[in-house]
Amino acid sequence: MFVMGIDPGLSATGYGVVEGGHPPTAMLAGVIRTDPGAPMAKRLAELFIGLTQVIEESKPDVVAVESVFTNQNLQTAISVGRASGVALLAAARAGLAVSEYAPTAVKSAITGDGSASKKQIQQMVARLLRLEEPPRPADAADALAIALCHLRAAPLERVR
Amino acid sequence: MFVMGIDPGLSATGYGVVEGGHPPTAMLAGVIRTDPGAPMAKRLAELFIGLTQVIEESKPDVVAVESVFTNQNLQTAISVGRASGVALLAAARAGLAVSEYAPTAVKSAITGDGSASKKQIQQMVARLLRLEEPPRPADAADALAIALCHLRAAPLERVR
Repeated sequence: MFVMGIDPGLSATGYGVVEGGHPPTAMLAGVIRTDPGAPMAKRLAELFIGLTQVIEESKPDVVAVESVFTNQNLQTAISVGRASGVALLAAARAGLAVSEYAPTAVKSAITGDGSASKKQIQQMVARLLRLEEPPRPADAADALAIALCHLRAAPLERVR
Repeated sequence: MFVMGIDPGLSATGYGVVEGGHPPTAMLAGVIRTDPGAPMAKRLAELFIGLTQVIEESKPDVVAVESVFTNQNLQTAISVGRASGVALLAAARAGLAVSEYAPTAVKSAITGDGSASKKQIQQMVARLLRLEEPPRPADAADALAIALCHLRAAPLERVR
C-alpha cells in the first residue's frame, strides 16, 4: 500500500509517499510553495494543481492529512483550514479515501510520545525509513511522518 | 457586469448572481448543502462540484466571497475556512477574479450600518433588488448581499 501524507499550509504544504512494508520505504517527498504576494484564490489554485499533479504522478492508494491544530490563533487556523480544505478536495477529486490525524496522534504513532519535538519526529522518521539523515525540508519530513502514522493506525481505524 | 456572491459554509453555502444596473437585478440565488454524515473530503468535493456547476451555468464576470468571521470559535473558523477555501478555488479554477469582503463591510455597504441585523440586511437586499419579499433561504439572501456589496465597492477597490 502506498500512502501519501500531506502536511497542509498556505505558504508551504509538505507531501510524502511511503510504501508500507518491513521496513516501510519513502518513495518521494517534497514541498509545494505558493507565492505570498499572490491573491488568496490564486495561491489555493496553485496548491490544488500542485497536489493534483503529485497525486497523479505517484498514484497513492490513500491520503493521510494532518488536521488543523486547535491551539493556533484564529487567523492561522483559517489559513491552514483553507489549505487543508484544498488538500482534502484534491484527494477526493482523485477518488482517494482520506484519513485525518491530529498532530498529537502523529507524534504518538511515530515516537510513542504525543508531545515529541519536531526534531525527535524527524530523527524517528529517518530511522523508520532507513534514511541516513532526516528528510529536508521539514514540511516534507512531517508529511512522511503523517504517512507513517497512517500505516501504523490504518489496521486499527476505519479509513474514511 | 454579473457578480456572483458566495456566503461559504460547510453545511450550507449560499450563492447569488446579480447583474449591475439601476436597479441591480437578481439573476439567480440558492444554497448548496452538504451531507453532515459524509466524510469531510466528500463534503468539500460536493461543495466544489456544486459551485463549479453554478459558475458554469450562470457565467458571472467576477466572484465576491464573504471572508471568515474573526470572532468565531476556532472549530467554526476551521470549518468555514475550508468551505471558503473551496469557494475561492472554484472561482479561480473557472478563471474568475475574486474579491473578499468582511461581514461588516457587507453590512455597511447594504445598510450603511456595519452592525446591521440579519433581518435588516435581508429587507434591504429585497428593496435594492425590487423583490416583493426577502429571498429565502437566508444564506441565499446573504450571498446576494455580498454581490451587491461588490457592485457598490468595485469602483473604489482594486479587484483582486
